[in-house]
Amino acid sequence: MPAPIPEAAIQAIIGAGRRMDRFNWVPATAGNFSVRLPGNRIAVTRSGQHKGFLTAESVMVVDLDGRPEDPALRPSAETLLHCGIYRRFPEIGASLHGHSIANTVLSRRAGDEITLAGYELLKAFPGLATHDASVAVPVFDNDQDIARLQRAVEACWDAITDGIPPGYLIRGHGVYVWARDMDAALARLEALEFMLDCELQDRRNPA
Amino acid sequence: MPAPIPEAAIQAIIGAGRRMDRFNWVPATAGNFSVRLPGNRIAVTRSGQHKGFLTAESVMVVDLDGRPEDPALRPSAETLLHCGIYRRFPEIGASLHGHSIANTVLSRRAGDEITLAGYELLKAFPGLATHDASVAVPVFDNDQDIARLQRAVEACWDAITDGIPPGYLIRGHGVYVWARDMDAALARLEALEFMLDCELQDRRNPA
Amino acid sequence: MPAPIPEAAIQAIIGAGRRMDRFNWVPATAGNFSVRLPGNRIAVTRSGQHKGFLTAESVMVVDLDGRPEDPALRPSAETLLHCGIYRRFPEIGASLHGHSIANTVLSRRAGDEITLAGYELLKAFPGLATHDASVAVPVFDNDQDIARLQRAVEACWDAITDGIPPGYLIRGHGVYVWARDMDAALARLEALEFMLDCELQDRRNPA
Amino acid sequence: MPAPIPEAAIQAIIGAGRRMDRFNWVPATAGNFSVRLPGNRIAVTRSGQHKGFLTAESVMVVDLDGRPEDPALRPSAETLLHCGIYRRFPEIGASLHGHSIANTVLSRRAGDEITLAGYELLKAFPGLATHDASVAVPVFDNDQDIARLQRAVEACWDAITDGIPPGYLIRGHGVYVWARDMDAALARLEALEFMLDCELQDRRNPA
Repeated sequence: MPAPIPEAAIQAIIGAGRRMDRFNWVPATAGNFSVRLPGNRIAVTRSGQHKGFLTAESVMVVDLDGRPEDPALRPSAETLLHCGIYRRFPEIGASLHGHSIANTVLSRRAGDEITLAGYELLKAFPGLATHDASVAVPVFDNDQDIARLQRAVEACWDAITDGIPPGYLIRGHGVYVWARDMDAALARLEALEFMLDCELQDRRNPA
Repeated sequence: MPAPIPEAAIQAIIGAGRRMDRFNWVPATAGNFSVRLPGNRIAVTRSGQHKGFLTAESVMVVDLDGRPEDPALRPSAETLLHCGIYRRFPEIGASLHGHSIANTVLSRRAGDEITLAGYELLKAFPGLATHDASVAVPVFDNDQDIARLQRAVEACWDAITDGIPPGYLIRGHGVYVWARDMDAALARLEALEFMLDCELQDRRNPA
Repeated sequence: MPAPIPEAAIQAIIGAGRRMDRFNWVPATAGNFSVRLPGNRIAVTRSGQHKGFLTAESVMVVDLDGRPEDPALRPSAETLLHCGIYRRFPEIGASLHGHSIANTVLSRRAGDEITLAGYELLKAFPGLATHDASVAVPVFDNDQDIARLQRAVEACWDAITDGIPPGYLIRGHGVYVWARDMDAALARLEALEFMLDCELQDRRNPA
Repeated sequence: MPAPIPEAAIQAIIGAGRRMDRFNWVPATAGNFSVRLPGNRIAVTRSGQHKGFLTAESVMVVDLDGRPEDPALRPSAETLLHCGIYRRFPEIGASLHGHSIANTVLSRRAGDEITLAGYELLKAFPGLATHDASVAVPVFDNDQDIARLQRAVEACWDAITDGIPPGYLIRGHGVYVWARDMDAALARLEALEFMLDCELQDRRNPA
């Protein structure tokens, strides 16, 4: 019988959902969140619920390949993207996916990346000690074949030689962000969404 | 003496109002919500109250033709639109009407439909398993003659051969959305309003 | 010794402030609210407080000419505008003043009125049973001489022959709205601000 | 052993964070707040926490040159800007720094000042008894060398002969505002952000 999910992981996931709902980043049943547990078990949200109103029963466990410990439960459709993050980055402990107006509108218009430059909030990203920097956030075409989408993500990561940004967008779909723990992941998400919102507002202004 | 309204139906209606008020979708006394009860009784909001602050006394019962069980009570003006939904779609259990900035501004500019395409959130609509799809949401001219407006809605539905979308807009007025139960109706409404808001934000951007 | 302020009037004023703060319509110490008491005593907010966090001590009483019952207390600077409303419209019981982004931006650009037409929410205004109508909301130049501003308001009202709208804007400053009681005044304010916000959003779109 | 931090100062700082988070002015770990204590001790937020969820442990004390009383604690990176405010203006008791979409977008586009004119809310600034005025809010280039940034601020202040505005922007970074106490600082901040938001909305409109 598998070990229970630590209460702290459940509360981190429920709390992330409430916080993201406050910003309208989890409309309908959108969004999914996960936390890495000891032994590379991944606690992840179940499919088909409003992520702003999660309970302990909304959280289940999969392994690094997305296989449920309890085969009766169905994880969020994009669980494999979470697993891909945990496999690639051993130091990462939490991962968030959300939909925002800004990331949806901008990613639909974008090419294969959105560059953020000159924002103080770039310092919320790892390895950046100054605003005088730029980050190219990858933008992937949406794909209902999640395994194929994950391969595209990995191909992109493989090609980056100067530091993989701790997040990416899926076109017309949403954002993924990750960090060592849930508080840090939420902080990165808030920073990224803030900068995307600035970009959206600024594009409306005359140059 | 008519049966009482089940507590779950009352709470679903009160909760929907609070949630919609949180998004500013029920300004002034706008909006109305309903739930189908056993025996095709329809629980619906009464007229003239702020829908963000409903109580059990704010809910009354009409039949499928909009006739109040208690003739002393007056249902929301657009109750006949709710009834039209329940008559047409036997599987539908809940229906929501709200006003948003996005649906008001866009419907005033639109022709007879607004097409949403390429959004992951389209999957919140029935029968769509991919973002690679489009939905044409009907837009009707506003009309204070609700019976006539309902006839226009039905004529539109009759002409659709490839699946009736689970919602429509009334120009300069608001949106109707329906689903099997209240949680599902709220999820569809949140998805639809999110995509409409994206459209509104995007129209401001240079092409 | 003057009669105490009825608790219902105090709660109506405190509640209006909380509701308006929720929409960011009372930034800094902006906004003021009043309720007519029996005997044409006017309960009105005191000067210089954040209107989202009022207490019973934030409310005082003036007469129809704005004279405080307790000369030690200072009413809001624009109390005379409230008094002008109560003197003109005997049936009016509550009056609200707030600042919104929409009413500030639009009034700075507007001429001497803003016309709202074709909105379902126009029905929140008195005497309008259809959306197929238009309301010309007066816009006055801002003036720190409140008595002079009130004379401009009255001159405008005197010149209107087809129904005085239950609100007006002051350029770069804010909105006044009134109704028979506080709930009705809040409903009119929410309807007016919603339509102004639609106008602001729409002006950004290509025609 | 240093004196404890008065509870009122701690609550003022915690409350400011909650209020600013409500407006999304402290995304990620952005923002910092301070209060002057007797003896020119400065209570200031510690580094690296979300400012919307502060506790008593989030507050520490520095002197007017930014040196921590407890060398084990690290103050917010921009503590020296707070100290510069308290050194220059002996009557000032509280200082706030936040990031908003409006101040970020506008400061990135601005030259060395943003002029606000004709707003009633200008009266929230000291010495302005009328809306018929203008305030030039300084905009400084962002700089990770805080001591150098503070020197630029002081050079700007030295050059102003007609009243130093109680706030400034840092390009792509955020705003600083100060006042005699925390409530007054929050009121000034709300007024300034409201006017900046109006400017942002207005720039999108056709002239």
